[in-house]
Parts: sequence; structure tokens; C-alpha cells
Amino acid sequence: MSGESRRGRETIDKVNRTAAEAQAASLADIAPELGQFIVDFAFGDVISRPGLDLRERELITVAALTALGNARPQLLAHIAGALNVGATPRQVVEAIIQMAVYAGFPAALNGIAAAKEVFAERGVAVDPPV
Amino acid sequence: MSGESRRGRETIDKVNRTAAEAQAASLADIAPELGQFIVDFAFGDVISRPGLDLRERELITVAALTALGNARPQLLAHIAGALNVGATPRQVVEAIIQMAVYAGFPAALNGIAAAKEVFAERGVAVDPPV
Amino acid sequence: MSGESRRGRETIDKVNRTAAEAQAASLADIAPELGQFIVDFAFGDVISRPGLDLRERELITVAALTALGNARPQLLAHIAGALNVGATPRQVVEAIIQMAVYAGFPAALNGIAAAKEVFAERGVAVDPPV
Amino acid sequence: MSGESRRGRETIDKVNRTAAEAQAASLADIAPELGQFIVDFAFGDVISRPGLDLRERELITVAALTALGNARPQLLAHIAGALNVGATPRQVVEAIIQMAVYAGFPAALNGIAAAKEVFAERGVAVDPPV
Amino acid sequence: MSGESRRGRETIDKVNRTAAEAQAASLADIAPELGQFIVDFAFGDVISRPGLDLRERELITVAALTALGNARPQLLAHIAGALNVGATPRQVVEAIIQMAVYAGFPAALNGIAAAKEVFAERGVAVDPPV
Amino acid sequence: MSGESRRGRETIDKVNRTAAEAQAASLADIAPELGQFIVDFAFGDVISRPGLDLRERELITVAALTALGNARPQLLAHIAGALNVGATPRQVVEAIIQMAVYAGFPAALNGIAAAKEVFAERGVAVDPPV
Repeated sequence: MSGESRRGRETIDKVNRTAAEAQAASLADIAPELGQFIVDFAFGDVISRPGLDLRERELITVAALTALGNARPQLLAHIAGALNVGATPRQVVEAIIQMAVYAGFPAALNGIAAAKEVFAERGVAVDPPV
Repeated sequence: MSGESRRGRETIDKVNRTAAEAQAASLADIAPELGQFIVDFAFGDVISRPGLDLRERELITVAALTALGNARPQLLAHIAGALNVGATPRQVVEAIIQMAVYAGFPAALNGIAAAKEVFAERGVAVDPPV
Repeated sequence: MSGESRRGRETIDKVNRTAAEAQAASLADIAPELGQFIVDFAFGDVISRPGLDLRERELITVAALTALGNARPQLLAHIAGALNVGATPRQVVEAIIQMAVYAGFPAALNGIAAAKEVFAERGVAVDPPV
Repeated sequence: MSGESRRGRETIDKVNRTAAEAQAASLADIAPELGQFIVDFAFGDVISRPGLDLRERELITVAALTALGNARPQLLAHIAGALNVGATPRQVVEAIIQMAVYAGFPAALNGIAAAKEVFAERGVAVDPPV
Repeated sequence: MSGESRRGRETIDKVNRTAAEAQAASLADIAPELGQFIVDFAFGDVISRPGLDLRERELITVAALTALGNARPQLLAHIAGALNVGATPRQVVEAIIQMAVYAGFPAALNGIAAAKEVFAERGVAVDPPV
Repeated sequence: MSGESRRGRETIDKVNRTAAEAQAASLADIAPELGQFIVDFAFGDVISRPGLDLRERELITVAALTALGNARPQLLAHIAGALNVGATPRQVVEAIIQMAVYAGFPAALNGIAAAKEVFAERGVAVDPPV
């Protein structure tokens, strides 16, 4: 296993191993190379970089996928991932609400609906905004 | 001045007062209401919220605008804003590079070109990624 | 209740009270602030403005959400909203068809599918285009 | 000349003949077919349809192009077109401001910047919002 | 029947007659004109043009719809269409994977999920990449 | 140099070495890692894959970037790249015109404007569409 593969797997294990395993299984018979690129390049080369910690990186991804508004499965996986690496439900909600300003209310509303689904599945609640 | 206006102006003063003043001047004779919404709603109601600090909020905005790829003037203003509220050039660069994974290389390349322009104007350099 | 809240609720009651109440209920335990921003800012500050009437505003929103193509729940609500404030089914259909020119046929086709769903639910039919 | 070509040219003459002629000239040596599709299909088949009048159609286009945010030359042409077919500067501004709600503030700000450029070129001013 | 209608229907029959008939049936009572534009303009005027063959045209469409990420029904129809006009499953998969570079991994993953659905329905498998 | 780096450089040399060198120089003092990812991952891992030839891959990229409409520098580089690997100007024009159907006329018009710029710079003309 190459260095980037090992680093990629370690980072995936922290962020969202369950989603990554389901994704790899789904890609196995059609595009396993794409799954390998996600391990090696996306997680091994990029998300594992220093400079930002994993909590910051996942919040940034949640915000960007909310703004783009066309990648719901990945948004669900990264909302869960953000919680897995230490973001609070409140921080996730704040990142999504902020997108109302930069990408419009529909994007933010659909992002919150995704967060609601993930939070319900994990039985977590949002603390008041302090 | 309403509470949200005061709060909005205080937050704008921290993030990027120069850009906000230029924007307000440009809107004055055509859509001053839009400028007021930015102060009261965008900065007063949303960006001033607790739950995430201003550095985190600006990095999130830089990432989202990089991913959307269709708002260069605002991306320039928020890259500068991120630096103003304590993000390092390295953190800005990392947030932008990460968008190669979620929005593709052209988005990341154009985000880096914007950062390069802002960094040059302010005479700041990117430290090595540790 | 502030002036903008009252104005926002009055406008929402005209456009699509049912959808707004469902949305508010859905946001209640996760992001009630976002629901409040929709009342106060989106409907109170923006959609209530003079200069365009509500029928024109809803048709514009239907067109824009069709073009963006990534906000189906909101497109459904605003197609219903357009009918509620006096747009004819024909006008809604024309606004959506026009998006084939500016955002491509897939966007227009998915917009028409949304309109078909709303029209069926309300038992309305499209008159011939004159 | 086919019926749709004649109808397309008549509609173009009302909306923005100057921009259409510049566009046709620019396409002449590389993709004249695309220019012909714009006359026959876009203006002849779609924009000439009954059901919405040209003022409504141009306002809808201005809103959609503002929301998409990636077609500045066409947005400039259709802001001018909206004025040509009877929209007031105020109506154009309102359609653009409304996009802050549905596509975010950067989209609306860049739309207003385009309107400002067109209004300046034509020496028109925005009346107060009543 | 006009020349472009006949040409359009011939091309549709090659690309994906089943999907086109379902689409026409769905549009019949709400926007049959849109269906006619797809026959006459989209397939008759554009997709039937020489210069690229139908296999190349369908692969280009699959790539573009994957990159846009907001038109799943049409992406499914054109993945099937690509196979119908001679593209191999491998070529379809390669066109989609390539979008990871230009539009990000979520776009490519959702494109592959669409291909997986079409391939399963038709009982085709992807050959190894040589 | 790793295998993917070597393969990436060989592919870049075929597609558009000039643009790649300018890009690498521009990234050198701010995000050289991003430049390395483009060599190793984008060109070495993805674009070098078998299954589609380079001419097909560049045409697909031209179409996708035209449809996205928010990456002009990269669109210019890949239009040139398509010519470099054997696409004719006519094929490039056809791929772009086709995007009028899937992403709207503004996207296609701006794509043609980019092609016009590249063709002029290289002194190539478009043959009639046969």
C-alpha cells in the first residue's frame, strides 16, 4: 500500500468509515478506480494535509456542498463526517445557515433538511446558539 | 440605528470595512436597499451569530464562493476578510485547494488566482504547509 | 412583532401559507432562526417590496429556480405560490419553457415535471397558449 | 425566410436589435448556425410565444441570468432588452434584488453591477421604489 | 412534417426512442410544445448535425450532465442513449470519471450511480479498462 | 519521479504544455501542491487512462466547461488542447453548439467566444460543417 493510500485510509477512518465502505462496495463492479482516487487523492493527498484540522475541513465541505446544492448523498456523508471529527451539531447548522447569504435560501433549506436527517439518525440535538 | 444594523456594522468593520464601503458607494444610486440588507441581514443577522467564530465563517465563505466559481469580486473581498479576522494565508490556500475535490480543479485554480491577487496586494506570503 | 415580521407574514399568507407552515414546523427543532429570516428578510424585506407585484415576483422565482435546477422542494412551493397570487397555469408553463433557452432543456423539463405535479394536486389544467 | 425566422427577427427587433446584430457579426465566421438558432428557435419559437408579454419575458430572463451568475454578456443584453420592451429601471432592479433570496447576495450584487453599467450607458436612473 | 421534425425523429429513434416516447407522453397535457422543440430543435437541428457522430455527441452530453449534476432523469436517458449509438459501458464510465477532475468527486460519484442503474437495467457490464 | 508523475507529464506534453507551464509558474509561490496534483492525479491518473483517446477526452472537457460556464481560463486551455490532440476546429465548435441544448444559449455563446479567441490566436479556421 502506498503512503498516500495508507494516509487516505487513516483519514477516512476518522471522518466516515461507514459511508466510505458503502461507497467502495457500490463502486466495486463499475468504477473501483474512482473509489481508489477518493482514498489516495481526495483523502490521502488533500484532506490529510496540515494547515486546517479535520473539523475545519469537514465544515468547509458541508458549506460548499450546501452551496452547490446538487450532491445530497455526499452532503449527508460529510455532515456525519463533521460530527465524527468533533464539530458540534450547532457548528454544522451555522455553516449551513450561512449559505443562505452566499447561495440563497433554497440551498440553505435543503442543507438543513439533510442535517436534520443525519441528526435524527444519530439521535443528536442542536444546542441553543449560546 | 437598529440593533441588527449596529451589530452588522461592527462585524463588517472587523471583516472588510474597505470593501464594504466601496460596495455601499457603488450601490448608493441604484440599489441602496441591497446594501442595507447586507449590513442588517447578512452581517447583522447571520455572520454575527455565535456558534462559529469570524475566522471559521470567512474560511467557509471562501470555500463556498470558490466552489460556486461565479462570484469573483466577492471571493476577493472574503479572502481579504479571512486574513483580516485571523486566518493565515496558508489556511486560505488550504480551503481553496480542498475545493478541487468537491468542485473540480478549475474552481480551485481560479480560487488560487484570486488569493494570489489578494496576497500580492497585501504583501503577504504563504508559509510552507508545516 | 416587528414591522418586517408582520409584513413578511402577510405576504407569506398570500403566497403560500401552507408550505410556509410546513417549513416552519420542519425547522422548529433544528434551525428556527432560518425560518425567522425567511419571514422577516425574504418575505418581509424583499418579496413585500413595491416595484413588482406578487404575481410577477413569483413568476420570476419560478424561472430562477427552474434555471438553477437544484431546489425542487422550493420550486414546487413557488409554482403553487404563483398560482395563489394570480398567475395562470399557462403563465407558469411559459416561464418554465423559456428557461430551455437560457438554462437548457433538462432544466425546463424538470421544471415542467414540477409544475405537472402541482397542477395535478390542485386539479388545474393549462389553457391552450391562445 | 421561414415563419419562425420572420417572427424571430421581429421579436429581436423589439428586444435588442443592436446586441443581436453584434452577436450575429461575431458568430459569422465561426458558428453562424448558432446565430440562426437564436433567431429561429430562441426568439422565433420561444420568446415570441403568447402567454407572457415581452416585458414579463425579459424580466424573467434577467432574473434567471442573475441567479445563474455565469453569463454576464447576455445579462447586459437582456437588461437593455427589458428596458427596450417597457420595463422600468425600477422593475429591473427589483427582479435582481429578489435573487439575493433565491441565489444569494453575490449573484444579486453582480446583477446590480451589470444593471448599473447598462443604465449609465443609456443615461437612465432608478426611480425611488414608490 | 417539416424536414427538421423528420430528421429529429430519425435521430431520436437511434438515440433513445423509449425515453423520448415516455417524455412526449408526460408533456402531452401540459407542454407539448416543449416536446416538439426537443424533436425539431434539439434533435433535428443540433444533435443531427454532421461534424461529430452520435456516439461522440452522446458521450459529450453524458459528461456535461454529470458535471452540471442537476438533471438526473436526463442523465439516465443519455447514458442509455450513448449505449444505443455504440458507446461501450467502459467509454461511458470513463467520461463520467473524468468529470471528477473538472466538476469534483460528488458529480462523478452521482454520475457513476446513474450509470450503474442503467447498466443493471440493461444487464450490461463494464469491461476492464484494457 | 513517480510513475503517475511521468505519465502525467507525457500526457500534458501532448495536450497543452505551454498552458501547463504557465499554470505551474503561476502556482509556484502560492500552491505548488495544486500544480503537482494536476500533473499526478488529473493528467497522470485520469486523463491518461485508456478507454477514451485524448481527442475524445478533450472534447468532453470542452463541452463540460462550456456547460458549467464558470471556468474561462481552463476552457481556453482545453480548446487549444483539443486542437493539439487532433480535434478539428469543426469538432470543437460542434461540441460547444451542442451545449445550447443541455445548458442554454448563453453557455454556448460564451463557449464559442472562447473558441473564437483560441482559433484567432492560432490562425485556424472552421471548415464548413460538411
